[in-house]
Amino acid sequence: MKKLIRNGTIVTATDTYQADVLIENGKISTIGQLLSEEGAEVVDANGCYVFPGGIDPHTHLEMPFGGTITVDDFETGTIAAAFGGTTTVIDFCLTNKGEPLKNAIQVWHDKSKDKAVIDYGFHLMIGEVNDAVLEELPSVIDDEGITSFKVFMAYKNVLQADDETLFRTLVAAKELGGLVMVHAENGDVIDFLTKKALAEGNTDPIYHALTRPPEIEGEATGRAAQLTGLAGSQLYVVHVSCADAVERIAEARNKGFDVWGETCPQYLVLDQTALEKPDFEGAKYVWSPPLRDKSHQEVLWNALKNGQLQTLGSDQCSFNFKVQKELGRGDFTKIPNGGPIIEDRVSILFSEGVKKGRIDLNQFVDIMSTRIAKLFGLFPQKGTIAVGSDADIVIFDPNVERTISAETHHMAVDYSAFEGMKVTGEPVSVLSRGEFVIRDKQFVGAPGKGQFLKRAKYGSTTSDKSQTLKI
Amino acid sequence: MKKLIRNGTIVTATDTYQADVLIENGKISTIGQLLSEEGAEVVDANGCYVFPGGIDPHTHLEMPFGGTITVDDFETGTIAAAFGGTTTVIDFCLTNKGEPLKNAIQVWHDKSKDKAVIDYGFHLMIGEVNDAVLEELPSVIDDEGITSFKVFMAYKNVLQADDETLFRTLVAAKELGGLVMVHAENGDVIDFLTKKALAEGNTDPIYHALTRPPEIEGEATGRAAQLTGLAGSQLYVVHVSCADAVERIAEARNKGFDVWGETCPQYLVLDQTALEKPDFEGAKYVWSPPLRDKSHQEVLWNALKNGQLQTLGSDQCSFNFKVQKELGRGDFTKIPNGGPIIEDRVSILFSEGVKKGRIDLNQFVDIMSTRIAKLFGLFPQKGTIAVGSDADIVIFDPNVERTISAETHHMAVDYSAFEGMKVTGEPVSVLSRGEFVIRDKQFVGAPGKGQFLKRAKYGSTTSDKSQTLKI
Amino acid sequence: MKKLIRNGTIVTATDTYQADVLIENGKISTIGQLLSEEGAEVVDANGCYVFPGGIDPHTHLEMPFGGTITVDDFETGTIAAAFGGTTTVIDFCLTNKGEPLKNAIQVWHDKSKDKAVIDYGFHLMIGEVNDAVLEELPSVIDDEGITSFKVFMAYKNVLQADDETLFRTLVAAKELGGLVMVHAENGDVIDFLTKKALAEGNTDPIYHALTRPPEIEGEATGRAAQLTGLAGSQLYVVHVSCADAVERIAEARNKGFDVWGETCPQYLVLDQTALEKPDFEGAKYVWSPPLRDKSHQEVLWNALKNGQLQTLGSDQCSFNFKVQKELGRGDFTKIPNGGPIIEDRVSILFSEGVKKGRIDLNQFVDIMSTRIAKLFGLFPQKGTIAVGSDADIVIFDPNVERTISAETHHMAVDYSAFEGMKVTGEPVSVLSRGEFVIRDKQFVGAPGKGQFLKRAKYGSTTSDKSQTLKI
Amino acid sequence: MKKLIRNGTIVTATDTYQADVLIENGKISTIGQLLSEEGAEVVDANGCYVFPGGIDPHTHLEMPFGGTITVDDFETGTIAAAFGGTTTVIDFCLTNKGEPLKNAIQVWHDKSKDKAVIDYGFHLMIGEVNDAVLEELPSVIDDEGITSFKVFMAYKNVLQADDETLFRTLVAAKELGGLVMVHAENGDVIDFLTKKALAEGNTDPIYHALTRPPEIEGEATGRAAQLTGLAGSQLYVVHVSCADAVERIAEARNKGFDVWGETCPQYLVLDQTALEKPDFEGAKYVWSPPLRDKSHQEVLWNALKNGQLQTLGSDQCSFNFKVQKELGRGDFTKIPNGGPIIEDRVSILFSEGVKKGRIDLNQFVDIMSTRIAKLFGLFPQKGTIAVGSDADIVIFDPNVERTISAETHHMAVDYSAFEGMKVTGEPVSVLSRGEFVIRDKQFVGAPGKGQFLKRAKYGSTTSDKSQTLKI
Repeated sequence: MKKLIRNGTIVTATDTYQADVLIENGKISTIGQLLSEEGAEVVDANGCYVFPGGIDPHTHLEMPFGGTITVDDFETGTIAAAFGGTTTVIDFCLTNKGEPLKNAIQVWHDKSKDKAVIDYGFHLMIGEVNDAVLEELPSVIDDEGITSFKVFMAYKNVLQADDETLFRTLVAAKELGGLVMVHAENGDVIDFLTKKALAEGNTDPIYHALTRPPEIEGEATGRAAQLTGLAGSQLYVVHVSCADAVERIAEARNKGFDVWGETCPQYLVLDQTALEKPDFEGAKYVWSPPLRDKSHQEVLWNALKNGQLQTLGSDQCSFNFKVQKELGRGDFTKIPNGGPIIEDRVSILFSEGVKKGRIDLNQFVDIMSTRIAKLFGLFPQKGTIAVGSDADIVIFDPNVERTISAETHHMAVDYSAFEGMKVTGEPVSVLSRGEFVIRDKQFVGAPGKGQFLKRAKYGSTTSDKSQTLKI
Repeated sequence: MKKLIRNGTIVTATDTYQADVLIENGKISTIGQLLSEEGAEVVDANGCYVFPGGIDPHTHLEMPFGGTITVDDFETGTIAAAFGGTTTVIDFCLTNKGEPLKNAIQVWHDKSKDKAVIDYGFHLMIGEVNDAVLEELPSVIDDEGITSFKVFMAYKNVLQADDETLFRTLVAAKELGGLVMVHAENGDVIDFLTKKALAEGNTDPIYHALTRPPEIEGEATGRAAQLTGLAGSQLYVVHVSCADAVERIAEARNKGFDVWGETCPQYLVLDQTALEKPDFEGAKYVWSPPLRDKSHQEVLWNALKNGQLQTLGSDQCSFNFKVQKELGRGDFTKIPNGGPIIEDRVSILFSEGVKKGRIDLNQFVDIMSTRIAKLFGLFPQKGTIAVGSDADIVIFDPNVERTISAETHHMAVDYSAFEGMKVTGEPVSVLSRGEFVIRDKQFVGAPGKGQFLKRAKYGSTTSDKSQTLKI
Repeated sequence: MKKLIRNGTIVTATDTYQADVLIENGKISTIGQLLSEEGAEVVDANGCYVFPGGIDPHTHLEMPFGGTITVDDFETGTIAAAFGGTTTVIDFCLTNKGEPLKNAIQVWHDKSKDKAVIDYGFHLMIGEVNDAVLEELPSVIDDEGITSFKVFMAYKNVLQADDETLFRTLVAAKELGGLVMVHAENGDVIDFLTKKALAEGNTDPIYHALTRPPEIEGEATGRAAQLTGLAGSQLYVVHVSCADAVERIAEARNKGFDVWGETCPQYLVLDQTALEKPDFEGAKYVWSPPLRDKSHQEVLWNALKNGQLQTLGSDQCSFNFKVQKELGRGDFTKIPNGGPIIEDRVSILFSEGVKKGRIDLNQFVDIMSTRIAKLFGLFPQKGTIAVGSDADIVIFDPNVERTISAETHHMAVDYSAFEGMKVTGEPVSVLSRGEFVIRDKQFVGAPGKGQFLKRAKYGSTTSDKSQTLKI
Repeated sequence: MKKLIRNGTIVTATDTYQADVLIENGKISTIGQLLSEEGAEVVDANGCYVFPGGIDPHTHLEMPFGGTITVDDFETGTIAAAFGGTTTVIDFCLTNKGEPLKNAIQVWHDKSKDKAVIDYGFHLMIGEVNDAVLEELPSVIDDEGITSFKVFMAYKNVLQADDETLFRTLVAAKELGGLVMVHAENGDVIDFLTKKALAEGNTDPIYHALTRPPEIEGEATGRAAQLTGLAGSQLYVVHVSCADAVERIAEARNKGFDVWGETCPQYLVLDQTALEKPDFEGAKYVWSPPLRDKSHQEVLWNALKNGQLQTLGSDQCSFNFKVQKELGRGDFTKIPNGGPIIEDRVSILFSEGVKKGRIDLNQFVDIMSTRIAKLFGLFPQKGTIAVGSDADIVIFDPNVERTISAETHHMAVDYSAFEGMKVTGEPVSVLSRGEFVIRDKQFVGAPGKGQFLKRAKYGSTTSDKSQTLKI
């Protein structure tokens, strides 16, 4: 059945205007003033923004890490995402050296396919580049629709790849149309500093931050950016947390390198002092990269504003404080890295960014949805409110005030990193391909309704279409 | 009568999609697939792009300069603009010290009102800041709808303002909601180098370039940007021609300063060697700032791509080669500065930018229209294809190949700076507020149909509207 | 009579070693181990450093300023200098527009010649560049031996020169072999901010700092440096006070520009909070540029260490707190700018720099003496301990601890900006051309013994001498 | 017997003056005008410079590399050095993983002790850092007098250390007083590019350069510098060849990091086109890093002038063209890396630097001798002409013109990389600890006369001595 969203203010990465949106067959068919209600279910958006569903480019759902597994799986994770105004997630598919990439992909399909309530895609981790991997990659891109590849410069002896692997991935991505993503921290130095801290009896959560200083994120970011420029390839730096890294990304972009940067809500609003909370509570705030000194926040906001950073990911990676985070009592290296944020990403950006005048409303949409769709080959199917696009739509009340809390959030995890934070604005209803997932703040979707998204090659959706325009 | 544009590919600063556009009462009322043709004149846009009309933020129509007057007035200038896909121009209104600003504005209204075939607005030159000027400014902004102010850092003893005038203008603009524009070259140094060149008998056109080296554009740009940061104000640097200036703008933006930069087609595709053409033909290429060494072009293109420069103006300022440019034979300082470009701005950006892969299609729209509308208080009335916006629309054939020539252009001037240049793409039809100005490459508009645009204050159209959304 | 300095540790800008120094006819004739005492007065320097006398490149003795005159003249000023380990000063000779430069020079000769107890030279202020000035300059350099020229970018309507004057001075200096010195602050902006502060009733000393923020020193420094690069000339930036300016100097030097920077003791050890002292005492700390936030100090120290700044001047410009500084009660713009430091320059650099490990001992000598001699055409006559050089020598006890105070200093002024500051190290004896000026911490010199120094052209004393070596 | 050097012009890193130098017991005892000739052998230096013997901080004598051994050993190498005005070399002692460091040191002592004609020291390669190495290091520094350590970031699977090894070396060096030296190229990327070139059939010498682009030297240099800053340690970057690396060193120094840079004559005067010489002659010019585009030369010269680079090493590493270089015919990776320069280092710096006005005479001495002595713990024993220092002295004719050629040089190798280059200036006589090694351009020394130098800890010779001055 058709749906007609009336009276809302449509917001895209460019436009802000009042109009009605008609949805047919899961897609936006018409946008206009005073459209006919005939044959349509009318959804009133009076007083609300109507913007494209958020796209979370950085989630770790049901992911094994350090002997445990993230709490939120594709069901609870995507339900929470939808509550938060996100209608697409791209999750990281981990691989194992020596095994076919397709095996890993199959594992991820198995995790997700009957659980997701919104659409989803996968990034693929690259841990090694050899003949077998190179042979398999074209099919991963063309057949599997997985067009982004993650290389870790940290987690020595576990996930960390050497520079040759990174460089070969960049070269291959350039040839095949993929986008290389890096976790940019110098794992060698971290390894040394970590061992040293433990040897000196420094085991509290705060040492997680102190053994991963911003300088080594800056270093690794600069290194990856320079290799990208040399390879003539493309790079997406995930979870940028500090001024050191922003500076290197800006430098690379100013040279014309195709380098992009993502930050996360936690780096925008939390700071390193959180790791010093008593009673081991600091463990709740253990991310990699770690939270930084407060002075970095303004740099990150400004980079979002002036375009040196382009996207916001959640790095959703939730572990319960009880049992899981507590694995690291007495040894901060055993605290599982990560936290629950998938539900709060969009709201925090709106409340802290738009409401506080740090970014404008259209930038907000670009940062949390449109630019991500473009970078990861989902545009224009996802990421905008335009005729022909999927009706992934959020109806958002910009004026409601509320408090984030584990008691009210929908993630399966037992704490919130933003407990007690007041935000302005909340999704009222959320549609995925024209169907309500959230309606009047209630979940009305169903596990398994989310579809896997085969994504286009890097750059293919933003290039000049005129050459293929048929006359 | 309603108009229905069918079968085209709509392009905005964000989106690219196929849909029909319905126009009612001069505005876009509906966008959709297979809209009803009932009661509408159908315009076929098959095989074409449908994008918002270009906005030229930098024209000098019928402007007195050095004892002569630019050839193109608001009639020939706006006709040529329309042929080139531009539906709005913002012209520079010159003022005289000691006279009320409103007198100058009236002069510009007199020049334009019965002549313009498309809509237009004015920037206002600020040559001095004193009590009288400060008293008049609020009314200029609020009543006249003129919200951008130009300060010259060059043309010593003629237009040049000192740093105190610049700084006071920045402070006033911040308070009142204006955008300060600067011509950024160090006029003092130019004055010295110019006198020195003449004294040494160096009178050829090339000395125009040699006496205005890029270093002094970089210096003045950096100075203006730093004063802007100090004032907490906003700055728009016109006609950025060189890497030196780009570097300073990027530096300021990275610090979070509200600094924007415009370049022009001539700097993107022509270079300094043009001034060395024999038989005084170099005079055709005399702009200020001058054309630069070819190496600067890549820097400018890259700055457009990565967002360190945001807009393209024409700096239309046409003088005939015969009689006018020839005033400078034997003394390059007497060559009127400027050239005819208003007609070619959009096409050159499309052909050299999009077609050659330097920028993408949505960036093209942003650079030549949308961003300009946003910066200068015209958005969303102008600058986009969205429901409720003025139907200022270009139907553009992206595949036709043609050659730029004075023989075929519509400007009143006797030469083209781009004579013989091949470009791909051409406007087929152009609408202003829903009426054809150009139809099937023929002019069908009329002088006087263009309306003066009162513009909104700086920042007011891009800020969060949610605070004023009524429920 | 010959003098033999025994048992000391000789320190130059390069060397540190133990040896005896034999002085004959006012010059160093021999350096060696265990030199014969025959016919020589023996001076024991056991436990002391023996280094070249300090050269203060920046003094304002008996200078008229804002309706009053600096307290210390060439007698009290040079006596205090000598007590502090300085054996040469270069004072700024102010000029008046429209008057021959030689008149001004004669005024300065009259002030100094019967008063100075150590040798001295003059810099010449350039307030205008016209035919008369250009005609006179060669003789100023060749006949008067004045080879450095000061241009003010601040003090609007008083001392401030425009950019054309600065640029012409740079061009002339390049041709003639002079070094251009700039006071780099944007006077236009200061003028505006100052008037604004007063209009708003902000009259306290702290507003002196707040109306001259570091950004405008950075701006002016960058501007002067860029014009220097364009002119291919040479520049010496006086009294660098902030990170903003250091950054611009470093940038210029990295481009290969011939740009040098001087800082002063006050910027290294005092900060802006001093201007907030109660009872108008903040007026004691009014310099231009003003004292800065404490964070700038580390940048300045580091710039001295890594060579981005090269020299230390005092900017001696003493006014009594009583009567003189008090002129500015109720209007900070009437506080005479400047303070008394000539006596403490060397000791503060030693104590805070060498003793605290920020610079090494040889850098100390370079910064306070040798480099200055080289830049200003006094080397090797002054600025080193080498055979053939003037015996301007300080015997310095590096271990004595003392407290700076107006009660014990030898300047004629009624307060010390460093009152109560503890320093380590003190000159014991000071020789000028082989004669004691200070002996065992007592003044034994005489007014009029100091000689005027005709200085060599810029660059002439450090270039390769081999071309003129006669075989 | 005493020696008296008369009539020369003494040049140090600071001073230039005419005086006689008296040498007793191998050391400089007196410097003065008209010293008594009594009991002394008089050496006439009329028309010549008398400067401290050069110190070559970077040699590979009799070093195994890629299955062959450098041609010049400690005998021919040091003889050639002496002819070239160098009186001290510091050679790189290679180590093997798993073996005690002392074994390697013993091998180097065995190579050198009966052969060297001038004094010498060793740097020690660090290929791994483990408990055994850490245990041995203090004794290496304290007992062996080896206080500088080389880490390779290139030569994957051969010499290359990972970042953890580099970082641990930096940390250990800071604690123990050592200076860490890096070969800064990203070996991982080189390895990939090299294999790729060979796989594509690109085997000529020019591919040596093309597979080691400047970007990866810049990257590795920046990485090492950032790790140094983080460790609070000290770094010396050997053989800086390009602007990319200079920029990173400057950036680090501007942040206050203790980072130093060395370049080599080949990078100052040769460029990448040399590798394209026909008949495999390009192999003569195979260094790592490779020769660069000519545009880098000006950057290097300027960095020496403004102090961003501080020293000149030769990277002497000579292989015969016949047999040795020819190993790489058909496979550029088999060309032994390196060339013969030990003899020409000082002369090229003088001729191209001082004579052409790029650096001044005192900088010349600093760059090729004094600064090296200070950085590597040899000062003031070596590196200056001062009372008490070793009489390592060069008498240098600055005006003689000559041509560099393999036919006349004294290295054992069969070609010169500078064949046919005209230089001005030549050492006439060279003394080591007061004894002639070269006299009137003839070798008069003897193998085995050179002594091994135990060097002081980093920083110990330039810090404030006042604390230890005995009264």
